[in-house]
Amino acid sequence: MLPVAIVGAAGYAGAELTRLLLGHPEFELVRVTSNADEGRRVRDLYPGLANCGLAYSAHDGAAVARDAKVAFLAVPHTAAMMVAPALLGAGLTVIDCSADFRLHDPGLFTAWYAEPHTAPELLSEAVYGLPELWRAAIPGARLVACPGCYPTATLLAAAPAVRAGVVTSGRVIVDAISGVSGAGRGLSAATHFVTATESVSAYKVATHRHTPEITQGLEDLGLPSASVVFTPHLAPLDRGLLSTVYLEVDPALSPEEAHAIYADAYTGERFITVCEAGTQPATAHVRGSNRAHIGVALDVASHTLIVTSAIDNLVKGTAGQAVQCANIALGFDETVGLTAPVPIV
Amino acid sequence: MLPVAIVGAAGYAGAELTRLLLGHPEFELVRVTSNADEGRRVRDLYPGLANCGLAYSAHDGAAVARDAKVAFLAVPHTAAMMVAPALLGAGLTVIDCSADFRLHDPGLFTAWYAEPHTAPELLSEAVYGLPELWRAAIPGARLVACPGCYPTATLLAAAPAVRAGVVTSGRVIVDAISGVSGAGRGLSAATHFVTATESVSAYKVATHRHTPEITQGLEDLGLPSASVVFTPHLAPLDRGLLSTVYLEVDPALSPEEAHAIYADAYTGERFITVCEAGTQPATAHVRGSNRAHIGVALDVASHTLIVTSAIDNLVKGTAGQAVQCANIALGFDETVGLTAPVPIV
Amino acid sequence: MLPVAIVGAAGYAGAELTRLLLGHPEFELVRVTSNADEGRRVRDLYPGLANCGLAYSAHDGAAVARDAKVAFLAVPHTAAMMVAPALLGAGLTVIDCSADFRLHDPGLFTAWYAEPHTAPELLSEAVYGLPELWRAAIPGARLVACPGCYPTATLLAAAPAVRAGVVTSGRVIVDAISGVSGAGRGLSAATHFVTATESVSAYKVATHRHTPEITQGLEDLGLPSASVVFTPHLAPLDRGLLSTVYLEVDPALSPEEAHAIYADAYTGERFITVCEAGTQPATAHVRGSNRAHIGVALDVASHTLIVTSAIDNLVKGTAGQAVQCANIALGFDETVGLTAPVPIV
Amino acid sequence: MLPVAIVGAAGYAGAELTRLLLGHPEFELVRVTSNADEGRRVRDLYPGLANCGLAYSAHDGAAVARDAKVAFLAVPHTAAMMVAPALLGAGLTVIDCSADFRLHDPGLFTAWYAEPHTAPELLSEAVYGLPELWRAAIPGARLVACPGCYPTATLLAAAPAVRAGVVTSGRVIVDAISGVSGAGRGLSAATHFVTATESVSAYKVATHRHTPEITQGLEDLGLPSASVVFTPHLAPLDRGLLSTVYLEVDPALSPEEAHAIYADAYTGERFITVCEAGTQPATAHVRGSNRAHIGVALDVASHTLIVTSAIDNLVKGTAGQAVQCANIALGFDETVGLTAPVPIV
Repeated sequence: MLPVAIVGAAGYAGAELTRLLLGHPEFELVRVTSNADEGRRVRDLYPGLANCGLAYSAHDGAAVARDAKVAFLAVPHTAAMMVAPALLGAGLTVIDCSADFRLHDPGLFTAWYAEPHTAPELLSEAVYGLPELWRAAIPGARLVACPGCYPTATLLAAAPAVRAGVVTSGRVIVDAISGVSGAGRGLSAATHFVTATESVSAYKVATHRHTPEITQGLEDLGLPSASVVFTPHLAPLDRGLLSTVYLEVDPALSPEEAHAIYADAYTGERFITVCEAGTQPATAHVRGSNRAHIGVALDVASHTLIVTSAIDNLVKGTAGQAVQCANIALGFDETVGLTAPVPIV
Repeated sequence: MLPVAIVGAAGYAGAELTRLLLGHPEFELVRVTSNADEGRRVRDLYPGLANCGLAYSAHDGAAVARDAKVAFLAVPHTAAMMVAPALLGAGLTVIDCSADFRLHDPGLFTAWYAEPHTAPELLSEAVYGLPELWRAAIPGARLVACPGCYPTATLLAAAPAVRAGVVTSGRVIVDAISGVSGAGRGLSAATHFVTATESVSAYKVATHRHTPEITQGLEDLGLPSASVVFTPHLAPLDRGLLSTVYLEVDPALSPEEAHAIYADAYTGERFITVCEAGTQPATAHVRGSNRAHIGVALDVASHTLIVTSAIDNLVKGTAGQAVQCANIALGFDETVGLTAPVPIV
Repeated sequence: MLPVAIVGAAGYAGAELTRLLLGHPEFELVRVTSNADEGRRVRDLYPGLANCGLAYSAHDGAAVARDAKVAFLAVPHTAAMMVAPALLGAGLTVIDCSADFRLHDPGLFTAWYAEPHTAPELLSEAVYGLPELWRAAIPGARLVACPGCYPTATLLAAAPAVRAGVVTSGRVIVDAISGVSGAGRGLSAATHFVTATESVSAYKVATHRHTPEITQGLEDLGLPSASVVFTPHLAPLDRGLLSTVYLEVDPALSPEEAHAIYADAYTGERFITVCEAGTQPATAHVRGSNRAHIGVALDVASHTLIVTSAIDNLVKGTAGQAVQCANIALGFDETVGLTAPVPIV
Repeated sequence: MLPVAIVGAAGYAGAELTRLLLGHPEFELVRVTSNADEGRRVRDLYPGLANCGLAYSAHDGAAVARDAKVAFLAVPHTAAMMVAPALLGAGLTVIDCSADFRLHDPGLFTAWYAEPHTAPELLSEAVYGLPELWRAAIPGARLVACPGCYPTATLLAAAPAVRAGVVTSGRVIVDAISGVSGAGRGLSAATHFVTATESVSAYKVATHRHTPEITQGLEDLGLPSASVVFTPHLAPLDRGLLSTVYLEVDPALSPEEAHAIYADAYTGERFITVCEAGTQPATAHVRGSNRAHIGVALDVASHTLIVTSAIDNLVKGTAGQAVQCANIALGFDETVGLTAPVPIV
């Protein structure tokens, strides 16, 4: 088995990586780091992992490089670009879940994250890890930038129509809903149970940092002059993300053709289900899994394609996709460690 | 006190009307009808109304007309048009919460509801009961058609911009989220707790019956050739509705001007709060109340105004608005019976 | 109207008091204090109170005494005993929601709260504010110690049987479930939405500070040598508290007699409903109200009376009961300001 | 791989068995039966199992016997005793999740289930499938009666103390809380989302059918004259069950000794974690897993041991335990198919 480490393992993304890697038949999780929780056992923070014997250590790049062949980074943005160069230099494969290597243009990073990019020389090497859309670039990659949760769901929803050439306008409206775990393990008034339960609200309207990533992705898919209007919402569920994407399309497109574009595009994709015409995905259907379920509807009167995409923000939206990318990068079957059926009611 | 009755009182809208009317200082609730629950006491179905001594009787138009001066109809569509004519004929004021008298055009009703309209002669008299937008028509009205929950939130969100003349396209995207009580008291797999909890999903995409009502409202507000793309979603909360409305606007409009349009439009409205710039409404903030909280954001790059509107689907979205309309129709202060502060955490 | 103030108004108990007092026809809320949130408006912290024009000021005993005739204390334990003496000295009626004046014995306070009692001279004057059990002491009281939420539900459940003399053992098991608002507005890992949702757990087993208060109450009701085993649980609801109380009773007691004892004991109580035999209360039935719903069941084989008592922890468990006590203390009708029907679905 | 079938596969227990068996490396799920959902695909009812190609067939004992070596029964009580004899007669191993073969005494079955027992001759052969307590009886068993969810959690909580001989009274109080999936997939007012959310309530107080099963289990563990007082509660979570068990114990028992009894009793048990002293289990910690987490606290003053036991009602409480029993009965490692780490936040 290949030894792997998680850097920044104590947050929700790190915990989900821990869960998946503990059950992975090809990877052996040998090290989990957390500066804030150094010395605590994984099972103290996450009692659901009662059988895990690991404890968090402070981050030590040399130790990670010594013990592991693959490093999964689940640290906040700007922290990843600090630790990645040394790990790459030591020969590790780096699978990064942060935003640091997602945008091709370091200026765009700075514009949205208000921080200079300290490792711009790695951006051209970094591979954007959304296998269903850009799989070919991943095998052998040394540095994979795993997409954000909203871009994952949104780009999977938009890609077939864009690639089929039926989208007639660069103006794309993305209205998405996320569960509370998307806000992370940190405490805040917004994530207090009493505040969050029985409530929905929009947040970071027109200012969310996943906007340029979605725009870049749409352009990479072939939509010129993409202009993304993105409104994320918070809903009272712990995990789950639904993105509803509005695309103006060729007036000649029929509902049947629209559905066929999606069904064809994702034929053979083992983590994607295109719902039958007339049915819609629900986040509960993908809870805990690395799957995306996609619904296709056409508003004929307005020539608007309405595509809904449901994922688990912590799995296909983060940790599961990271494992999927690692599998591909390192030559394993793409689904290894990601196939256990998860609770369905 | 004015004697009032609720026809179809055993469903959620009827129960909420019961709650509000029991606490109303000018109306005396004298009769609650339900064919399905005839003979049962209100407090047996709704133990929270433990002090209510009323029991449901089968609907009897003559008895309602004898006992009450005002009839609130909380029956399903097509049932309201069956009972309204006789009640009006007997001199009652009818406040209808169903869809039957909302659309001006009976053909449009038939097209969306797949039923003939049996009282088309009343459509010209029916007043659309959204006081903040069309208050002047309500005083003295004999028949008020209270708006649907989604149209209420959506039209309140769109109206100021439309009326200010800054909306440049008839293409309006409405992406909305409702709590489960919006689906009513009837049992269904979709509203089973295990199905609904920890899940969000879209439903009736591009086919929901509130679509023509929203379109009609936008046109009445002055938006020519309105083309509405409407996607309702279900989220795991019992009550609450958030509508996010996307309007293409004049590129010269600034965020400050956009916000001012809304603040000005709703100055003096006692049930509407325009959130401060940069803040967003949450459904929890209006839970149990007849209030609407509205957030205004402008995506400058795409000239898109993103307006969010939070209401309680059962209060401002149904029963509270019905009481508000009855207050106005009958000459009482608009807020009577609707001002008790409701639980805020 | 009588001017009243809330000291410590920014927490959940304070916010609920704010809500109730804003709707109270005899009290005028003139001052809300919070050292932590000084200068912020009530509606900034609690947007549901959008019409409230008050802002928090730092606590200033002299200012409270100048402006108000009644002070509701919603500060943490030990803070109340610091501010109460001066307010009483200035002639105010003090309604305290903290634990400071609940226990007759200051040594017991110190044993459980690990702090010395700094105003023991007030303990003999303090009245325990559970009107349905000890109403006679409240009229004219200067200092009312409102019970804790768990003791309120539990003592209401136990009292009729104890007073009827059918309880045969001092060993009383109290197993209770609370919503998350019971833990207050402060942030903690336990109240993070992701931790609390979809989970139940016990906490402070056999060590919760409401234990001696329950014991004292049972003894005051006439149960000698009460020995209380108390296990509180946390469940994923924002408000609501259910206490299930196990009492060993006379083997000759029949289920009908048991129910009659409760129905008789609470006849005429306007905030208490004894559920019909065979039915059980639910916290949703009392959500937002000052009511307690009580269910009575007898396990004949083991001679165990199982009494369930549902309240809203923030209303009958805190703020509502405080208003009820203030009404009585000051000579108003007991239910004033507490009768608005609350959302029932 | 060993071919297995699920009889009554369309309910929640059946669905959870489906999930687990699809991921089981030694069993091949070849047939799923449901009379009500005949012809529908598994993935139509449970979209989370999107990769499952099976469809439900009507129950046909001969077909099951022809295709499978093991039959898991997830049918309601009385249905299991109808189909089990023929399956056993055909040589299958039968793992029954219903109540039909749990009680040793058919008269007790009739007394609590109000139905005659139609296969009493099988009761002496049936093995009660709670491996951690009675593992030795399971290898080679032809008919395993898997315990109810409440008895599983409760007996795991009580067993170590009972077997250690420290329990001094047969009077055992069991206060338990279950998620809504425990009520099954059938629709009811009680399981409607709007009714169940934000509410807790007791149900079937002193009359729940798991009572005699718990009593029998305690006596089998060595507690003479057990008298069980059992109060189940419903809380707003989809899965999860917490049982809080009150045991009167030897006054000489110290908290440390009490904890040691539990830690020792479950040493080596791969599905059981005894929480460290001072900590408590939460149902979220075992969600989706076959684990039980157990908390031990001693109320010294009253000599009461308070043991809390958290399980997932559908896994350790039903389907997972059934798989565990099948593993043991058929000679596989007990944990096969049950070790995948499950989502932990």
